[in-house]
Amino acid sequence: MRRARILLDGQARWVTVEGDTLVLPDGRSVPFDRAQFLPPVERPSKIIAIHLNYRSRVEEYRARVPEAPSYFLKPPSSLAGHDTPVVRPRGCRFLNYEGEIALVIGRRCRQVALQEAESYIAGLTIANDWGLHDFRHADRGSMLRVKGLDGYCPLGPIVVEPQDIDLHSLTLTTYRNGQVAQRARVQDDLLFSFAYLIADLSRLITLEPGDVILTGTPANSRPVEPGDVVEVEVSGIGRLRNTVIEEDVDFGIAGIQPRVSWETLHVALAIPEDEAKRMVEA
Amino acid sequence: MRRARILLDGQARWVTVEGDTLVLPDGRSVPFDRAQFLPPVERPSKIIAIHLNYRSRVEEYRARVPEAPSYFLKPPSSLAGHDTPVVRPRGCRFLNYEGEIALVIGRRCRQVALQEAESYIAGLTIANDWGLHDFRHADRGSMLRVKGLDGYCPLGPIVVEPQDIDLHSLTLTTYRNGQVAQRARVQDDLLFSFAYLIADLSRLITLEPGDVILTGTPANSRPVEPGDVVEVEVSGIGRLRNTVIEEDVDFGIAGIQPRVSWETLHVALAIPEDEAKRMVEA
Repeated sequence: MRRARILLDGQARWVTVEGDTLVLPDGRSVPFDRAQFLPPVERPSKIIAIHLNYRSRVEEYRARVPEAPSYFLKPPSSLAGHDTPVVRPRGCRFLNYEGEIALVIGRRCRQVALQEAESYIAGLTIANDWGLHDFRHADRGSMLRVKGLDGYCPLGPIVVEPQDIDLHSLTLTTYRNGQVAQRARVQDDLLFSFAYLIADLSRLITLEPGDVILTGTPANSRPVEPGDVVEVEVSGIGRLRNTVIEEDVDFGIAGIQPRVSWETLHVALAIPEDEAKRMVEA
Repeated sequence: MRRARILLDGQARWVTVEGDTLVLPDGRSVPFDRAQFLPPVERPSKIIAIHLNYRSRVEEYRARVPEAPSYFLKPPSSLAGHDTPVVRPRGCRFLNYEGEIALVIGRRCRQVALQEAESYIAGLTIANDWGLHDFRHADRGSMLRVKGLDGYCPLGPIVVEPQDIDLHSLTLTTYRNGQVAQRARVQDDLLFSFAYLIADLSRLITLEPGDVILTGTPANSRPVEPGDVVEVEVSGIGRLRNTVIEEDVDFGIAGIQPRVSWETLHVALAIPEDEAKRMVEA
């Protein structure tokens, strides 16, 4: 089953995807291209993301493969749908895309065995784990100021049940204005499998139905500019698209201003030294 | 109004607190000492905590006062009630209490002005922001492996509306087995006020009704042992109590084992060098 959640006549509705058509439970249909998509999950109790899970990204960082995955949370208020704009606050310069595959948990679980873990996946969808690295200096590693902003977790456009997709042969491609920006054969590049993440997380943390796990991004996350269109494509699922816009935000009271050095870009974002220096001077 | 949420005949029920008695909407009552308390919030969409917000804790770390607060999230699965046990997995040694005041958000808000921010507080309750620092090395700053465990965010026993308490004259005391472990006159010690936290967070992140903000802990968070009883008392609210227990957990697949050096205790937990060395050698 391939499903989506759309806004229709002011209400959120689940629909099934049949080719280019979205079909409502009452038989009505909406063309895919005309639909207003909502994230294809309902009120997840948590959205868990992983710092490093692609070999290509570890190599880009010149880091060692971590002995275990490390995670952070994005708030549900960061959820957005396919085709929603992503805001770069005016004065900020380092809003980066990170194309990802997202898992939706189907059943409550705790201390799941590795061999059983895949059976807890109810669906796969596409995510873009947007990050505003101008606030990296005020974040102390949690990513809330960087990746927790409203709209910084678009998901969709559709969610696919695991039996309708080959979980072990996926490709992920991110496009910036139609040009390939990230590309990975997921199973060749992934460090910790989907099953591993579920088994590992559930050792100490109960996973609930609807919880979302973002499984990491491959190399080449880069900053974008207002007007850019970023699409994340996953084979067998589709393409998630967002357009970057600029908005005024008052940073007044926090006592912090957006600020990035080339060292931050280099160390925190694995952007090569020359490229990072050019970016900051630009 | 002072309220609590209790489990009665298998159902979660809101009650009002009248002295030592909890009164149900239908007039029935339950003695406070006989009630089974649930966290006094319903399905918060997020629980936001702050790394450093007490001057005494900054001094303990010999850190500089941060120019802005930094935050992390705890998952809703970490919520627990008054008098629930807190689990230290067998093999772990550094489960630390952190007594805190928690705010419950009353109305959806974004970009709230500082002067308006207090009006978005629907209630105050007591929290203990438990952390298992044996996994600090596998956490990369997000705190999910350290502070995201099931039961590591007890709240309660009751929630008090802001008009029924003097928000600007609170004291917080943590007791370990009846001995004072942390003590603060909150307004003298707090770096960023409750209003400030709401205004700051809401600049970029929508706060929803029921969202919880843990406002930080003063100096002297320390590890505890199975059997210890930890109570956090806030003037005008009450006392939140948890007992530490030990349980077997299989750390198998993660490729990590609990591990703490004295340097970690000293740097990450601000425990003086000599004390940290004694703890690790013990």
